[in-house]
Amino acid sequence: MTDAAVRPKKPATSRRTPAGGAPTAPHSADEARAAEASEPRIDVAAVTDMLLGTWASTRREAREMIKDPAFWRVDGMPVPEHRERVLSQLHLLVQHGGSRRAFPKEYGGLGDNGANLAGFQELVLADPSLQIKSGVQWGLFGSAIYQLGTKKHHDRWLEQLIDLRLPGAFAMTEIGHGSDVAAIGTTATYDAEAEEFVIHTPFRGATKEFLGNAGLHGKAATVFAQLITGGVNYGVHCFFVPIRDEEGNDLPGITTEDDGVKGGLNGIDNGRIAFDHVRIPRENLLDRYGEVAADGSYSSDIPSPGRRFFTMLGALVQGRVSLDGAATTGTALAEYIAITYANQRRQFDSGSGTDEVVLLDYGKHQRRLLPRVAQTYAQFFAHDELLKKFDGVFSGASDTPEEREDLETLAAALKPLSTWNALSTIQECREACGGAGFIAENRFVGLHQDLDVYVTFEGDNNVLLQLVGKRLLSDYAKQFKGKDAAALAKFAVGQTAGKLFHGAGLRRLGQAVTDFGSTARSVELGLRADQQHDLLAGRVQRMVADLAAALRPAGKLSPAEAAALFNAHQAELIEAARAHGELLQWEAFTDGVNHVQDAGTKEVLTWLRDLFGLSIIERHLAWYLISGRLSAQRAASVSRYIDRLCVRVRPHAQDLVDAFGFEPEHVRAPIASGAEKVRQDDARAHYAALNASGEAPVSEKSLRKK
Amino acid sequence: MTDAAVRPKKPATSRRTPAGGAPTAPHSADEARAAEASEPRIDVAAVTDMLLGTWASTRREAREMIKDPAFWRVDGMPVPEHRERVLSQLHLLVQHGGSRRAFPKEYGGLGDNGANLAGFQELVLADPSLQIKSGVQWGLFGSAIYQLGTKKHHDRWLEQLIDLRLPGAFAMTEIGHGSDVAAIGTTATYDAEAEEFVIHTPFRGATKEFLGNAGLHGKAATVFAQLITGGVNYGVHCFFVPIRDEEGNDLPGITTEDDGVKGGLNGIDNGRIAFDHVRIPRENLLDRYGEVAADGSYSSDIPSPGRRFFTMLGALVQGRVSLDGAATTGTALAEYIAITYANQRRQFDSGSGTDEVVLLDYGKHQRRLLPRVAQTYAQFFAHDELLKKFDGVFSGASDTPEEREDLETLAAALKPLSTWNALSTIQECREACGGAGFIAENRFVGLHQDLDVYVTFEGDNNVLLQLVGKRLLSDYAKQFKGKDAAALAKFAVGQTAGKLFHGAGLRRLGQAVTDFGSTARSVELGLRADQQHDLLAGRVQRMVADLAAALRPAGKLSPAEAAALFNAHQAELIEAARAHGELLQWEAFTDGVNHVQDAGTKEVLTWLRDLFGLSIIERHLAWYLISGRLSAQRAASVSRYIDRLCVRVRPHAQDLVDAFGFEPEHVRAPIASGAEKVRQDDARAHYAALNASGEAPVSEKSLRKK
Repeated sequence: MTDAAVRPKKPATSRRTPAGGAPTAPHSADEARAAEASEPRIDVAAVTDMLLGTWASTRREAREMIKDPAFWRVDGMPVPEHRERVLSQLHLLVQHGGSRRAFPKEYGGLGDNGANLAGFQELVLADPSLQIKSGVQWGLFGSAIYQLGTKKHHDRWLEQLIDLRLPGAFAMTEIGHGSDVAAIGTTATYDAEAEEFVIHTPFRGATKEFLGNAGLHGKAATVFAQLITGGVNYGVHCFFVPIRDEEGNDLPGITTEDDGVKGGLNGIDNGRIAFDHVRIPRENLLDRYGEVAADGSYSSDIPSPGRRFFTMLGALVQGRVSLDGAATTGTALAEYIAITYANQRRQFDSGSGTDEVVLLDYGKHQRRLLPRVAQTYAQFFAHDELLKKFDGVFSGASDTPEEREDLETLAAALKPLSTWNALSTIQECREACGGAGFIAENRFVGLHQDLDVYVTFEGDNNVLLQLVGKRLLSDYAKQFKGKDAAALAKFAVGQTAGKLFHGAGLRRLGQAVTDFGSTARSVELGLRADQQHDLLAGRVQRMVADLAAALRPAGKLSPAEAAALFNAHQAELIEAARAHGELLQWEAFTDGVNHVQDAGTKEVLTWLRDLFGLSIIERHLAWYLISGRLSAQRAASVSRYIDRLCVRVRPHAQDLVDAFGFEPEHVRAPIASGAEKVRQDDARAHYAALNASGEAPVSEKSLRKK
Repeated sequence: MTDAAVRPKKPATSRRTPAGGAPTAPHSADEARAAEASEPRIDVAAVTDMLLGTWASTRREAREMIKDPAFWRVDGMPVPEHRERVLSQLHLLVQHGGSRRAFPKEYGGLGDNGANLAGFQELVLADPSLQIKSGVQWGLFGSAIYQLGTKKHHDRWLEQLIDLRLPGAFAMTEIGHGSDVAAIGTTATYDAEAEEFVIHTPFRGATKEFLGNAGLHGKAATVFAQLITGGVNYGVHCFFVPIRDEEGNDLPGITTEDDGVKGGLNGIDNGRIAFDHVRIPRENLLDRYGEVAADGSYSSDIPSPGRRFFTMLGALVQGRVSLDGAATTGTALAEYIAITYANQRRQFDSGSGTDEVVLLDYGKHQRRLLPRVAQTYAQFFAHDELLKKFDGVFSGASDTPEEREDLETLAAALKPLSTWNALSTIQECREACGGAGFIAENRFVGLHQDLDVYVTFEGDNNVLLQLVGKRLLSDYAKQFKGKDAAALAKFAVGQTAGKLFHGAGLRRLGQAVTDFGSTARSVELGLRADQQHDLLAGRVQRMVADLAAALRPAGKLSPAEAAALFNAHQAELIEAARAHGELLQWEAFTDGVNHVQDAGTKEVLTWLRDLFGLSIIERHLAWYLISGRLSAQRAASVSRYIDRLCVRVRPHAQDLVDAFGFEPEHVRAPIASGAEKVRQDDARAHYAALNASGEAPVSEKSLRKK
């Protein structure tokens, strides 16, 4: 196509005055709106700072780096070339120092966990394959060695994995076991005589599967296997296993296979690994949480096998954290493109007879896009909270078992919501741009294809939400510890249970949401901030209480019967966890709004927060009606209020997506480059000139009237 | 991968007894279910016949043809090769006689419109690019010449377009005008002196866009342009314009561009065409609905310009009809794969301590997949109604303006629902298969990518639903014709309006739904068939009545004010149209069930129909509560009833998807080939043998107890 893929000017920047004050440029293609929108306006640059969050400078550094076209995804590139290109991008990343942030200083790293994820996530703008292959190398393979290994492993492998001399695969998932890691079939049997472990794949389903770097580039793998020594299975542990020689041939006993073409992320060489009695030295057990002595005796600082297993898995939580951030950034990009196009593209006559209407002026178009912008804002704020918690735990600043558990639950609650939302929003954006949205260069389809698997990898979304649901149930049960069964039952069915539960456990964030200030505009129809919070929090409480009551008989049942009872309530448990995640996002958004000083920004972001809160409530409106928490009249007003908020937010739509801070090299979509506006202006100029010339053909209708 | 892509045996066939009686084979991998499910069972072969519908034999013929691997999509094939492959498939199709069914016998065709679409739709199983490129050539380019042209055009071009000597593009859409065809910018100005039309693209936005065959293979195009003669614009007409010479070079005045890589359908060479004062003979106007004499005088059998325009567009309705069918078949394929896998794949211990649970035994898994199977059944039945109506109109058997209008509205109501459902269901199926669902060979990702654009082409789904909504409003207004404004207002706000409206206009199908027989099982909780119908039909009536009341002031407003009022209700109008489409699907499903003789089949399909009806009601539960049509108690029972129906349908899930009648060459997904069952059985055999050997390692936990 002939349209310029990269705009000559940065629109976001042009909005900012040199002194960093309020923006002055007109608002949208529709001049009538500029006046209407002149008060309030958001301070675009300041909002960008907010959205980039605690590690804004690292994000900016990463965004600057990926302006280099060498990092960009090339649509339609055949799979083999794409794989080589992404491998070369990883080397480029090493050169830019992008691979070492998380690792300790003594190995050339920076020891900065939060910054590492913040910078890494931005790679999604260049090519999600680059983001995920980097994640495989440094976030999974590298982290396994760093987090699960000890000094001898660090000394031996960290430097060469940081600089990519040692590319590796993370071999956890098996064909037969994805989410149920504890049940994997691969065995690592200790041979005390040889002082070696024997790594073995006992049946086809135990083959390691879907591993990035396993198809082609990996030289070694961190392999999860059942550790067996002295006839005892000590559960899943991780082992360093070389898989290919320098020429790329499988080592003896190793069989790798290529997973072939995938739905997206085709810059990554996913594959399978099977082991046929492969022997590795005893020292290759990554033994931070469990050791085997030369004589085969096992020891661990964590006596409980279950706790030990979850501690090892928890050390790898960063994958989920980073997917939450990357999904949010990818979603924001799609919204930037769709909103920018919707502000320029015209379709159908407005009724005036002369001008066609800009897409974003259509009621349906506002309804389909604007609540999604609100959702993305909520996700940015919630992600920064998650990232701060992650950094606190991994920096050691707040590394307690409780904080680790909270971090894992928070990641398990947020990652499903943001990754699902990415797919649904990118798809809506693509459809909102019609056929142009389907052309690869306009980015939506590539983003959807690449981000598709985010919803099932690093923990299947439904499985993660189930974990969150179980945590909510156990927190709920703790509220009643020491109380007798009768009291418990009474609480569980009564409204009072809600009060006890409120603010406890994971909902700690909620405690910051007490002062909603004087944002009077958010007071409308009895659906202002504190009522939104009551509705959202109340729903979580009620759902958890109901579930607890329904599952209470499980204690008296056989394991199979208990599992059946649980299964009958599985969908509700997942739904309760989702409600919890939505509440967390809402609270984070509200915290963010409360920190805003600028009046115009605060007002617009409060509308946007309301749009987010009410959109969640609208989604679950039937629940609120059935539970008696909203009257039919109040419920009906929710949708009408959302309609009004859409109209109110509409003039600010471009500012709100400009505030994502993307530059032309990140956007790269011709339909968001201004070319559409040029075309529309051309068309209007053509007809104006034709009319002025007196040579325009008359219409058949007008002829008839004569 | 090493798994066989094609199964040696047909599972659907193995279910059928030689005598064609009730199936006898056990039901699922879980033997416990076989007994439970032994009564009732569906007659799989008979249900296949029902689903394949009126033109079952043509469908079977097409399915037989595409067993040839030459027709299959090859994942990861670079775009240029894929385009050539699909072109060669079109030639193969010609050899098989697949391109001529719709055309008249005097040109070598069969004159069978229903069979044509029925056969054509099945191509989606081979490669959706093949389906759509065929659609471009014979359904759009060919139909334009056949339906909009006259004998001189047929004589000249039909035979060579049928046998692909003349590949062509259908040049309607422009960069600046997609859905608003009436406003396209391309002009065809008659030059009486030369007896030629001058085809011209006056500005960039008027460039023809997204045209299949325009990128590479097209030699001519049917170009839609504003017909101007004698200084008068007679509106949009269609012209035959040669675009490339035999060597594939653009003809003088023609500029073609390639659209490049798309989100899917990359076997099709979409592109752009611009015209710089290109001259064509006067005879190249396809003049069935409007002629220009040599002296430039215009004449038409249809005096109203608006009606003429819509008649021309209506002649091309088959695109929408066929997308409804193809989307349904594609969705069924995804469901076959996901359900088959879910019946074999095991994950997590059941609580028994020995066996892992088959995925489809999980409550959440049933909830996410089974209502979608019900939806697909409804679509198959509704599509057959649509296809029969299409055939009636285009065969001339029932070609009245009313029938044409009904056909267009029916297509506009059903195509959006089935194409959106395709994307959402294929995605759910892909996620339900985890990482395996993301591997291209398992089909989901390719289907999603290819079918993505179905929701915005051949009429953007939202625009189509808006048309349906307007038709509903005008049908509604007709009910009151002759009544005064006061009576109208009274009806509009009262419940009685519903009674008047019921059964009228498009809801003609509903009249067949009066006898629900004695399927006593569907009587449950006051949500049996007739109540489902009342709820679904009542919703359409109420929404339309409310909209009519809200829009009534429009008549007294300026065009711009009326447009603004309409815009404020645009989202509701689209929602009302969607409700109408859902009702049509439900009624078609119910009609289908009523025709079943076999008791077991009737019982299971009645459950499935209930699952479909209640799933729609659950989706709109808030509306039913707010409007007072369901009490909170009754509303709560809807979800519980769905849960129970899922449990009831679950043992029949495999039968229900086997009844789609796909054979291994249509499925081609390794995870649905039985390989997963082999792997699972291997794993269980391994552990059983290990336990029997006495050499199994003991668990750490058991050690502790000692």
